Amino acid sequence: MSAVMNAAILNKPLDIEVEQVAVPVPKKDEALVKVYCIGVCGSDVHYYEHGKIGRYEVKEPLILGHELAGEVVGIGDDVKNVSVGDRVAVEPGVTCGKCEYCKSGRYNLCPDVIFMATPPVDGAWAEYVVIRSDFLFKIPDEMSYEEGALLEPLSVGIHAMKRGKATMADRLFVSGLGPIGLLAIQAAKMFGITEIYASDVVPFRRQLAKGLGVTAVFDPIHEDIKERISTLTEQKGVNLVVETSGNGKAISDTVKIVNRGGRIVLIGLPTTDSITLDVNVLIDGEIDVFGVFRYANTYPIAIQALKNSQINIEDIITHKFSLKEIKDAVELARTQKDTSVKVMIYP
Amino acid sequence: MSAVMNAAILNKPLDIEVEQVAVPVPKKDEALVKVYCIGVCGSDVHYYEHGKIGRYEVKEPLILGHELAGEVVGIGDDVKNVSVGDRVAVEPGVTCGKCEYCKSGRYNLCPDVIFMATPPVDGAWAEYVVIRSDFLFKIPDEMSYEEGALLEPLSVGIHAMKRGKATMADRLFVSGLGPIGLLAIQAAKMFGITEIYASDVVPFRRQLAKGLGVTAVFDPIHEDIKERISTLTEQKGVNLVVETSGNGKAISDTVKIVNRGGRIVLIGLPTTDSITLDVNVLIDGEIDVFGVFRYANTYPIAIQALKNSQINIEDIITHKFSLKEIKDAVELARTQKDTSVKVMIYP
Amino acid sequence: MSAVMNAAILNKPLDIEVEQVAVPVPKKDEALVKVYCIGVCGSDVHYYEHGKIGRYEVKEPLILGHELAGEVVGIGDDVKNVSVGDRVAVEPGVTCGKCEYCKSGRYNLCPDVIFMATPPVDGAWAEYVVIRSDFLFKIPDEMSYEEGALLEPLSVGIHAMKRGKATMADRLFVSGLGPIGLLAIQAAKMFGITEIYASDVVPFRRQLAKGLGVTAVFDPIHEDIKERISTLTEQKGVNLVVETSGNGKAISDTVKIVNRGGRIVLIGLPTTDSITLDVNVLIDGEIDVFGVFRYANTYPIAIQALKNSQINIEDIITHKFSLKEIKDAVELARTQKDTSVKVMIYP
Amino acid sequence: MSAVMNAAILNKPLDIEVEQVAVPVPKKDEALVKVYCIGVCGSDVHYYEHGKIGRYEVKEPLILGHELAGEVVGIGDDVKNVSVGDRVAVEPGVTCGKCEYCKSGRYNLCPDVIFMATPPVDGAWAEYVVIRSDFLFKIPDEMSYEEGALLEPLSVGIHAMKRGKATMADRLFVSGLGPIGLLAIQAAKMFGITEIYASDVVPFRRQLAKGLGVTAVFDPIHEDIKERISTLTEQKGVNLVVETSGNGKAISDTVKIVNRGGRIVLIGLPTTDSITLDVNVLIDGEIDVFGVFRYANTYPIAIQALKNSQINIEDIITHKFSLKEIKDAVELARTQKDTSVKVMIYP
Repeated sequence: MSAVMNAAILNKPLDIEVEQVAVPVPKKDEALVKVYCIGVCGSDVHYYEHGKIGRYEVKEPLILGHELAGEVVGIGDDVKNVSVGDRVAVEPGVTCGKCEYCKSGRYNLCPDVIFMATPPVDGAWAEYVVIRSDFLFKIPDEMSYEEGALLEPLSVGIHAMKRGKATMADRLFVSGLGPIGLLAIQAAKMFGITEIYASDVVPFRRQLAKGLGVTAVFDPIHEDIKERISTLTEQKGVNLVVETSGNGKAISDTVKIVNRGGRIVLIGLPTTDSITLDVNVLIDGEIDVFGVFRYANTYPIAIQALKNSQINIEDIITHKFSLKEIKDAVELARTQKDTSVKVMIYP
Repeated sequence: MSAVMNAAILNKPLDIEVEQVAVPVPKKDEALVKVYCIGVCGSDVHYYEHGKIGRYEVKEPLILGHELAGEVVGIGDDVKNVSVGDRVAVEPGVTCGKCEYCKSGRYNLCPDVIFMATPPVDGAWAEYVVIRSDFLFKIPDEMSYEEGALLEPLSVGIHAMKRGKATMADRLFVSGLGPIGLLAIQAAKMFGITEIYASDVVPFRRQLAKGLGVTAVFDPIHEDIKERISTLTEQKGVNLVVETSGNGKAISDTVKIVNRGGRIVLIGLPTTDSITLDVNVLIDGEIDVFGVFRYANTYPIAIQALKNSQINIEDIITHKFSLKEIKDAVELARTQKDTSVKVMIYP
Repeated sequence: MSAVMNAAILNKPLDIEVEQVAVPVPKKDEALVKVYCIGVCGSDVHYYEHGKIGRYEVKEPLILGHELAGEVVGIGDDVKNVSVGDRVAVEPGVTCGKCEYCKSGRYNLCPDVIFMATPPVDGAWAEYVVIRSDFLFKIPDEMSYEEGALLEPLSVGIHAMKRGKATMADRLFVSGLGPIGLLAIQAAKMFGITEIYASDVVPFRRQLAKGLGVTAVFDPIHEDIKERISTLTEQKGVNLVVETSGNGKAISDTVKIVNRGGRIVLIGLPTTDSITLDVNVLIDGEIDVFGVFRYANTYPIAIQALKNSQINIEDIITHKFSLKEIKDAVELARTQKDTSVKVMIYP
Repeated sequence: MSAVMNAAILNKPLDIEVEQVAVPVPKKDEALVKVYCIGVCGSDVHYYEHGKIGRYEVKEPLILGHELAGEVVGIGDDVKNVSVGDRVAVEPGVTCGKCEYCKSGRYNLCPDVIFMATPPVDGAWAEYVVIRSDFLFKIPDEMSYEEGALLEPLSVGIHAMKRGKATMADRLFVSGLGPIGLLAIQAAKMFGITEIYASDVVPFRRQLAKGLGVTAVFDPIHEDIKERISTLTEQKGVNLVVETSGNGKAISDTVKIVNRGGRIVLIGLPTTDSITLDVNVLIDGEIDVFGVFRYANTYPIAIQALKNSQINIEDIITHKFSLKEIKDAVELARTQKDTSVKVMIYP
């Protein structure tokens, strides 16, 4: 194996190019993975465009990308759970295993997590990547690398369902139909939910949701969602709402749309720190609100569920690029939200 | 409407015949339902054969039957949730609504419940039946009366999944494939479980389970279930076990079959009060065991899930009889377990 | 017993007087209770002052009051759980027992609840009151009528702890120290919480909280609560926040004060429909928010816990009046919040 | 510091003596702790007497002991959470942090745990011990080393309460009043339980339980526990049972003693693999049974609760010995169960 590899380096906002860097070397408990397929996430696009997200800032050249699957091509001495040649999905955040969050099962809140493509930690828009092997998960033969890569955004949807205590007893409304919203729908189906309503301002995305089999889709600009849901459910309403758009009005509307006694899961980060909520409705209705930050313990269950079900998560891939075309890929994801959902890179 | 109707009266064990009795009259909060379809349950057969189950004894002539659907043909003055002409499924236990169990959501444990076909309360192997209207649930046009009637045993399966905290994250083993076991499998699928193992001594029932799409079925007499599951799951095992057979050895085996940290749901009542369990395994493995008695709050969610899914619960019906043939129906259910599962009566 | 009794009638805002009305007669499942002691609640004061709360409006003369204890002096034919002569606390909302909320254990959300002193339902600032007997709870000899009456606001605190999943593992901050805040502190102690921080703008109320044994109290105007808590807990912070003030800024601050992964319980209703929340913090920190509306299934457990513990809930009573002095009592509660907490009426 | 230390070596059953061994040297993430105080646990006595427990066998000389507190006297380069001079309690099982159990918060089920005094892992009946520093917990000045050492058995009680979902709403029966039973009572009080019944065959232990403030104690040989509880609770019964004795009959009785809808927590390991349970009662009553194996995430919350409460866990210490007297200590614990509870060793 060559000692150098191609990797997409973000030097500063809007300046990304493929350069040659050293192939990383796995430590004793790490594995080296040849990247077959890796997605472009909204956060990648945001770093590309603005150079920072909240408190995280790109101060030195950075490799982005954290939704990936590939093949194990090298392992450290202590690695036992994977072998060279294994096809694997990569969970991109390595946690400490020792803090109170890790020890109590909420490792997604670990303050010492090392998360790919969150500055200053490099991601995996590259030919190879190393990672601690307990964050690698073998994928079955019938699962494509694309599906393996999409386990990452799907994990957010699965975690949202767990946080929201979703079961087949629920009627669900999903707000926002980007990759996270669409995969939250697929996750909801995995949890047995059969009645799903969804909304997005982009017709193309509503169309995609329809293709996934949702009960009905709404245009939040021109339709009164609460009224439409009330009619379609014979006044029963929805008792679970998952918000993925981050739009301020959409977030505010969640407490109006959900039933009394219902649950709201918030995933989409708004661009402002000031969202207005009708707290009287939340209190009078004894509503639960659950924030969702990444995910925990989702990969094994996602792999099992996809292997044995008819659910197809690849439908959300709209464009594919080679690593050399990275700039085109990111620009497309940045500018053409009306016709794209998930863009895939093939190193 | 005539003032009399046909009903199957159990006079004493093995002595059942159709007689004419008065059509019951609904009170203010009750409805009169014309019975279209009603199942034969194992408990009905047990009363027919032995005249009692545990502390419940048939001391006077009794109408059996409690798995039914029909049409509302009369309502009391205060009834608002159903109207004459509605097609409905009947939840057959009327609870007090005032005790601690009722008020805390576990109304299936209500000590004052009036449950059809549990002596001395009459059931519904008859042309008509009255019941408090909040235990009637409208069924959609696409749902057959047979499905409506089967909501009762399906409810046990759904309640078992709720008690066992079943989600798509689980791998499940179902022990016993009578109506409750088969419908527990359907309920498991409704909760998103995709990997289901099952066992029964009767080949015909194993075959039926295969038809429902389970991952594998076992013969508990000739196969080592734990070993088979271990092999098929690549040593991952199952973390949820649902026991429906009531067989002593099957109950004892649950703690050996389930993973450490797993959950066992017990539904099948054994014929003895002394079941041997390896409690060391239960403690060392931090296993949870949950008893299941009937169900609560299952009808609306079952109707919703069946309406919107591909799951077909009618497959378990193997025989159909008119009310006049009631003795043949019960005798068949009693004696031919190798070739029958659910027997339906049509008044 | 006389056929008439004294009752405090609210004719219109600020116009309340004691008049003679007929003693109510219990129905078959009801009991007649002689009221010994009944509190003045913030909602009573609000109706007295403004004639309405949200969608509830006083359109005809109304008896207020719903925090009471007394003696059973008459029972309907079907009543079994209490007898004449029993000392009882009264849970003031009678629920239907038949809707989905009632049947699933959340009867506080019953849409058909008949709740005392919520227009047009009369309350109990009167010598006698009737109520369905399953909402009467015998109190032990060692419990005073005052404690019995205070079970109502204490129930809100207990319900808040249940909603917030409070255990001895939590460090708690209580915002607002009116009756609900102070009793939430007592409820928190009942749930085993040993580290409690609290704030209120009124020094008298902070002093009362100190007397209840809280770890520290803060002045929200002049102190930085988050910083103070951080210092006092050696940077560990609080993982549970209970907001009882309804103050807009206090509600907004909850997400800043609670730890990542923490829980917020909202009880205090704000006077505006637009509360500003930093939803990014809520999402990034995977915070849970739980609205609280009244309570369910709290009376028996409150009676048990108070009987066997050293916790004294009577400390929050600051003033006592006879029923004839009702106007003085309500005026005091309305105007002297700096020196009063709970005002008690003795019919 | 000397390179050698005294340690109690178990050579073979009943053969234990103090020898000089090398002081262990901490790795980068470990600390060296000078042991001030360490308890004798039932498992230590069992290894001393029989040389094995279940699948764990003492094949080479072994140091026993795992209930300890001491002072940090050395740390590895990467240790940040403790410093030399800190007084600490030691959680004696080091888990992998990488398996599914660890990652989901149930690290007590980690298959790769390295647990002190479980062959072939040495324990801490010695002057010094090393351990990974994230299993060290600073204890406040007001907490004695004895209390620090007792956090280990107390943790079992706390974990039992968590597993059993204990709250102030429960009435509890504790079966068996050895160290675990007595500390389960203290843990129950920490969780807010105010009504506690308990039983043991040994009068001395019943007396100790009385001293801890339980509601009533029973002699399981001569009293009908269910009847006694029923009388004392005015037929309300107990809805939570914690079994710590391991006695076969006591385990069998749990399902008879607990209320319908109640919960049973099993801690005490029986000496036989065949315990007889009335599974009909378990099913008919929808009872939950939870096995308990060690504990997880208990030390920080135990320290917090003890610091701020009046609960005194040292009362269960009945005897104290120096390390040199180890044989006397273990023999006393082995033979004098009627007059001893917890024996402490002081290296």
